[in-house]
Amino acid sequence: MTTTPGALTGTPTALKLFSTPAPSKDTMTITTSSRAAHAVLPVAPVATLLSPLSIDEARLESAGFWGTRVAINASATIDHCAFWQEKAGWLANFDAAATGDLPQTRTGREFSDSEAYKLIEAMAWEHGVHGDPALDASIRALTSRIGAAQEPDGYLNTNFGRPGQEPRYSDLEWGHELYNYGHLLQAAVARVRTAGRDELFEIALRAADHVCEAFGADGIQSVCGHPEIELGLMEFARLTGEPRYREQARLFIERRGTGTLDDIVFGRSYFQDDIPVREATVLRGHSVRALYLAAAAVDLAVDTDDAELLAAIELQWRNTVASRTYITGGMGSHHQDEAYGEDFVLPSDRAYCETCAGIAAVMLSWRLLLATGRPEYGDLIERCLFNIVATSPSDDGRSFFYANTLHQRTPGAVTDANAQSKRASSSMRAPWFDVSCCPNNVARTFASLGAYIATVDSAGLQLHQYANATIATELGDGRAVSVRVETSYPRSGEIRVTIANAPADPSAPWSLSLRVPGWAEGATVTLFSGATGVEVTRPATPGTVTLSERFAAGDLVTLNLPMVPRFSTPDPRIDAVRGSVAVELGPRVFCLESQDLPARAHVDQFIVDTETEPARTPDDAVTVRGAVTDPARQAWPYGADAGRSTPATESVRLVPYHSWANRGPGTMRVWLRTS
Amino acid sequence: MTTTPGALTGTPTALKLFSTPAPSKDTMTITTSSRAAHAVLPVAPVATLLSPLSIDEARLESAGFWGTRVAINASATIDHCAFWQEKAGWLANFDAAATGDLPQTRTGREFSDSEAYKLIEAMAWEHGVHGDPALDASIRALTSRIGAAQEPDGYLNTNFGRPGQEPRYSDLEWGHELYNYGHLLQAAVARVRTAGRDELFEIALRAADHVCEAFGADGIQSVCGHPEIELGLMEFARLTGEPRYREQARLFIERRGTGTLDDIVFGRSYFQDDIPVREATVLRGHSVRALYLAAAAVDLAVDTDDAELLAAIELQWRNTVASRTYITGGMGSHHQDEAYGEDFVLPSDRAYCETCAGIAAVMLSWRLLLATGRPEYGDLIERCLFNIVATSPSDDGRSFFYANTLHQRTPGAVTDANAQSKRASSSMRAPWFDVSCCPNNVARTFASLGAYIATVDSAGLQLHQYANATIATELGDGRAVSVRVETSYPRSGEIRVTIANAPADPSAPWSLSLRVPGWAEGATVTLFSGATGVEVTRPATPGTVTLSERFAAGDLVTLNLPMVPRFSTPDPRIDAVRGSVAVELGPRVFCLESQDLPARAHVDQFIVDTETEPARTPDDAVTVRGAVTDPARQAWPYGADAGRSTPATESVRLVPYHSWANRGPGTMRVWLRTS
Repeated sequence: MTTTPGALTGTPTALKLFSTPAPSKDTMTITTSSRAAHAVLPVAPVATLLSPLSIDEARLESAGFWGTRVAINASATIDHCAFWQEKAGWLANFDAAATGDLPQTRTGREFSDSEAYKLIEAMAWEHGVHGDPALDASIRALTSRIGAAQEPDGYLNTNFGRPGQEPRYSDLEWGHELYNYGHLLQAAVARVRTAGRDELFEIALRAADHVCEAFGADGIQSVCGHPEIELGLMEFARLTGEPRYREQARLFIERRGTGTLDDIVFGRSYFQDDIPVREATVLRGHSVRALYLAAAAVDLAVDTDDAELLAAIELQWRNTVASRTYITGGMGSHHQDEAYGEDFVLPSDRAYCETCAGIAAVMLSWRLLLATGRPEYGDLIERCLFNIVATSPSDDGRSFFYANTLHQRTPGAVTDANAQSKRASSSMRAPWFDVSCCPNNVARTFASLGAYIATVDSAGLQLHQYANATIATELGDGRAVSVRVETSYPRSGEIRVTIANAPADPSAPWSLSLRVPGWAEGATVTLFSGATGVEVTRPATPGTVTLSERFAAGDLVTLNLPMVPRFSTPDPRIDAVRGSVAVELGPRVFCLESQDLPARAHVDQFIVDTETEPARTPDDAVTVRGAVTDPARQAWPYGADAGRSTPATESVRLVPYHSWANRGPGTMRVWLRTS
Repeated sequence: MTTTPGALTGTPTALKLFSTPAPSKDTMTITTSSRAAHAVLPVAPVATLLSPLSIDEARLESAGFWGTRVAINASATIDHCAFWQEKAGWLANFDAAATGDLPQTRTGREFSDSEAYKLIEAMAWEHGVHGDPALDASIRALTSRIGAAQEPDGYLNTNFGRPGQEPRYSDLEWGHELYNYGHLLQAAVARVRTAGRDELFEIALRAADHVCEAFGADGIQSVCGHPEIELGLMEFARLTGEPRYREQARLFIERRGTGTLDDIVFGRSYFQDDIPVREATVLRGHSVRALYLAAAAVDLAVDTDDAELLAAIELQWRNTVASRTYITGGMGSHHQDEAYGEDFVLPSDRAYCETCAGIAAVMLSWRLLLATGRPEYGDLIERCLFNIVATSPSDDGRSFFYANTLHQRTPGAVTDANAQSKRASSSMRAPWFDVSCCPNNVARTFASLGAYIATVDSAGLQLHQYANATIATELGDGRAVSVRVETSYPRSGEIRVTIANAPADPSAPWSLSLRVPGWAEGATVTLFSGATGVEVTRPATPGTVTLSERFAAGDLVTLNLPMVPRFSTPDPRIDAVRGSVAVELGPRVFCLESQDLPARAHVDQFIVDTETEPARTPDDAVTVRGAVTDPARQAWPYGADAGRSTPATESVRLVPYHSWANRGPGTMRVWLRTS
């Protein structure tokens, strides 16, 4: 077979693509006709309204809110995840498979194989950005261990199929075999797109072909309890240009919702097997499953021009955001089944808001943004990134929240930095969990974060997320443009976009579009001409502001988003937070921690005074006025009016939600009582 | 050995005691020195401030709120439970154990054996009240099947210990082996106290001795993940007078809380193994487990004169009632682990409030009432009985709620009357569950309900619960008294207590005490002298009102409790129901069902007007004024003021909570929004 750079963008990193000679495989052709096969990015649709940029084209700087986090991810989190997977014995499961020591020595849950794949995906994107040869070697070493565990027919799983284990595909509801493959395929996509075909691709190819054999039109007429294989197959189809994988993804997506799987104690809605994807009107059941499935359905819809399916997912997204989403962007109201609640069931104290669900919401919203260009998808991505994805890891990138509560009632104990946590939620971040999807998911998301900040269309560049970055790409019409984004957002609302390189023909205008977040009433955009020194400012209403200009190098576009802290009131149908307000500033939700109250006071004692507007402090906090009450004890908590006195108010400090739980055990709440 | 009637009360039913000759067992002496061995009642402490009455002494009439339910339990529920246990194959597990067909044919969960024991307990109490010979035959038949499954050393469990099963006591955290024995012992106690020693007693005796061997001071130093064996052993000790069983209960109670069991995902608090019983200050973890353990601790405390232990449980009860109990008396805020939440975590829509926890709260509160005589324990018993225990079964006694939510947001589907429900909660009652503790627990509670209405002390009779009944007993000083209670409570607040028989010596007064519920401000008590025709009325403040008189037959004491519907407001620390009120009338909580709103309106649309007091209707309902709002759709449910309009108010009907879900699928809420 022949591979050519195709639509490669010409940046140096991209040259690494296919630097390893691809082994030949007669039935296999990697298509070269679109960005899909080669662009260094996680999601490469065949054709969407907006086209994503690769992480070579949109390079994050290492300073600023996101740059700092991406750098810590590269220097600490990826190693941390590898260390813990080794320590927990999950990687050794592959070795044991090869040496015939399974199931005796197996450790970890039934989906632990997938953590290795998420880790490789993270490593691959990171290697794609910075090209560290040691990381490349680590990927190759881990790939070899995985490959040794694969069976001749492509089946690859350390938990099923051997004597003493359950048979292959005997527990589709809970077994996660196909889920694991989905992550393997995504890892292979990342590897091929950043380093070219290597052993991981061959492993994935055998696995994908095996899945198509086993679950194709003539195979097992079922699906996996945990959607994910659909995402993997769709992207693998884009990578390879092989329609067979897309067809298999289609089969999985269309089969689901028809009672394909066994009924379980949580009901079939748990794995979205209650209603066909294109008939559902809202997301339900296990949040990560629901979001992965919906994201894959968008992939299928855009690659097959299925407007009905796309509209169905858009409706589900709208209804879910309108009535089943926390103010942090978090999703999942139940601990029991890690699931969405019914409409307006959004308890703060039992909020699950799994980190992975926040990441999955970004994945879904990104696909919808590419498909439609609608800025509300960018708004939700921003909300999830700042308030869920940024909240999970600690500042050092070595401990994590699995769940992201909005109300911590008990301080809890200090986390043991050397112990795996059994708990899905805690008052403190933990280094690792029995179920450790979240740390690896955080790692792969940060490693590819640059891919989510900008897009192009035929004659324009769109900025969706604001971070220090250099963007050098081609518009759809082939013109090369580059801009430099400088900002201390979200501490400042000023985003400066300098035109670094403009198309050679200045007579044809091109457009620069900037997302104006829904909260940013009163925003302005200013165009400063480097040539003339003229500066023009105009209002930028929430949505998208687009400047179509004959830009020249040195021109400067400045978006000014008003950064005024605000009280947000909840829809009165949300029982859990009635009579409360939250404080937001820019894209971030703020919270009250007990460390900022007088000694030994609990956050639940605080009543906020909404007559006084919240105020910013110089150190990235906000103050509100309010009173610390000390309610009387009551023998029976109903029917009395005790504990309703309101002492004098004082000024109290709130911190960004993503920065909570960094001062030892304490209590915390996002929604502040108003009475 | 010799058995004598001892402290038997002389009523006809009691004569059945020990009518079956007791098989001899050299090491076994049944003590005859207290009521404990013989009284026909579930809880017979060696000595408490108040002494319980047997169900022969306090006989419920078949009319009225409780009489109707007890009659339906006898005529329908017990049969229903037997039918479903047979249908589900749970009883056949015992047969299969005897024929060597386990584990191949086993059905049901690891605790299914216990359902047979709860069923026998229910049958035994019911047989003790009405003496139906067919029921006696059923008990004997079922006992034989169980006995055939017992192993020579006393071990009895269909789920462990055979080839192909896990070894005995290899999974104390989840295996429920000791839990099952606890219910076996309680069943045997019920059988001996209502029909004398028979095969069931011999089975239980072998099992109890086996437990003492296996888990005694020199045995396995552990406890069962689900407390219950402690209750069974304590009562078995009372029945037999054998201190060995009490000592074993003590060992189990004292071992718990020291990290005896493995840590699990829910933490050791799940099975109360986090803090020693006597050091804990509040109930926590799995609610039924916590309550059974606390109840057994009271048994131990009163029988060993352990004031410290009793005080610890009283404190736990107070703190739990003050901050971890729903207005219905329901306990358990988590679906995930069927557990208490933290203080003030009492969400209406995710209320678990397992029926068994309501029953267990009655069991605990009853033991504390006997020990202390404090009326607040009677108040909580009443609240749980009217709002949890009465809510679970349908009017025909053949379908049940397992969980008792305070807010049903979605109507759900009609329940299949022929299918076992997988769900622990539903908008409709279900005939049976995969985990069917609740129906059997309801059956044994109703079958022994008479035991909970009255007590005696040295010179008085105390009425704690109000139902049509005839009470004929002896005071502690040996004087015989009898009274007849007539009431249509809770529809009426008038409770008429006629003295039917008074001690022969009228010169010595005796006392009649009546519980005045906490909500009954303004109650009065009237004494009418049959001899003189003189009537004297005086106020009866909440607590206990006691009349010490030289009562004569024909005297009438009337308690008048004001039955005025009232709004109840929640403690402001309960986030979940802030800005809401509930409506109560007498001991009952009322609720709004969508069937009482205009067509297609959802209960969440209703805003109550608290300026207008609620009013009673002639048919046992209440009306409030309020408005049905129709909030506008919002794309994002925070930060806007949409949906806050208040249309004109209208009169809307509320029904008793225990009667909800009898009109097909609908929505329901207890707490009504005030804005």
